[in-house]
Amino acid sequence: MIPADIPPSARLVNSRLYVLVDGRNDERQFRDLVSGLVEAKVDLLQLRDKRLADRELLQRARILRQMTRGTPTLFIMNDRPDLAVLADADGVHVGQEELTVQEVRQILGPHRLVGVSTHTVLQVRQAIADGADYIGCGPTFPSITKSFAYFSGLKFLRQAASETTLPAYAIGGIQLDNLNQVIESGFRRVAVGAAIVDSADPARSVAMFRAALAADD
Amino acid sequence: MIPADIPPSARLVNSRLYVLVDGRNDERQFRDLVSGLVEAKVDLLQLRDKRLADRELLQRARILRQMTRGTPTLFIMNDRPDLAVLADADGVHVGQEELTVQEVRQILGPHRLVGVSTHTVLQVRQAIADGADYIGCGPTFPSITKSFAYFSGLKFLRQAASETTLPAYAIGGIQLDNLNQVIESGFRRVAVGAAIVDSADPARSVAMFRAALAADD
Repeated sequence: MIPADIPPSARLVNSRLYVLVDGRNDERQFRDLVSGLVEAKVDLLQLRDKRLADRELLQRARILRQMTRGTPTLFIMNDRPDLAVLADADGVHVGQEELTVQEVRQILGPHRLVGVSTHTVLQVRQAIADGADYIGCGPTFPSITKSFAYFSGLKFLRQAASETTLPAYAIGGIQLDNLNQVIESGFRRVAVGAAIVDSADPARSVAMFRAALAADD
Repeated sequence: MIPADIPPSARLVNSRLYVLVDGRNDERQFRDLVSGLVEAKVDLLQLRDKRLADRELLQRARILRQMTRGTPTLFIMNDRPDLAVLADADGVHVGQEELTVQEVRQILGPHRLVGVSTHTVLQVRQAIADGADYIGCGPTFPSITKSFAYFSGLKFLRQAASETTLPAYAIGGIQLDNLNQVIESGFRRVAVGAAIVDSADPARSVAMFRAALAADD
């Protein structure tokens, strides 16, 4: 169990692995996936699903909250501070086209986390100035989950690593076989979707990512 | 100007015409549309746009708020209590797949309106029990804006009219040339999208709907 007096932001300090999950096709599949990831001690789990209607999305969020409460895994809701409040999530993650950090906090209150996706050094500086709790940096590699008109690449990771004063997670197309390039760019924190949740054994994939991220510590 | 001490719910009593607007393709088109509708004294305007990213949707919502403030037109946000709070909307409208009335109020507070779409008599009773401020009833006719696997039709309107204790707006495919069937079903309140906002002259369409709804009063 996690002592109740450790705020979510303090729990980011030692975090390494952030996993993005969708709502899956049914509740049973979703519970199985989350259960494996929580047992594998993922540091953060983000619920991101653009297909589900709000009522079902909130139901999935409440399951995620129930399954992570009292564990080392933080629960972050994508985009939606309203759903984060209703599901008692630990925070909200927003992109550059979504609500601003200040707007999210207006709904969320001061005690939950707000994370921001960044794709340029200017956006990294802005997120720091806006008071984000953490940033995502990417896309690192072309992704199979989300298509971008561009990808920021490893050069951006090196710039971001030297700029950021916040916990920063590299994201976008990261897999075990390219993770070394990410680490060499100065990142020891990564956010991963498909490479873990759509793998044959998500919990085993988590263990392999964690081992690779912890090497040479 | 509307006296500040008249609560939004009291302003529903004499309402007749509820118009649904999307965000249009650009801000200028949106301002032109809203301007015409507010000058034509539409009773309620709902912003509903599933295409826009949150940042742009909120920007449209703030424009709608600015253009309706102090006018007889109430501003309702579709689905999203977070955006309604941030834009200072008069209320939120939810469907059966969206958040519940109670969940919306948890984000919205007690003083703004919550409306619910209903498609069956059981849903009408549930909305009343849940404390909704108003209901939408439909779809009345096959709609060109939103496709349903079914449509509730005029029989449902007659049932809903005899059941409801709340202000109720017939919705779904309503046009000037079928409005009489709606009125004969017991409804003097309607919600209209395309038939007004995509007409050649939205303000003139509003005037014609208002005249038809006021006839025989």
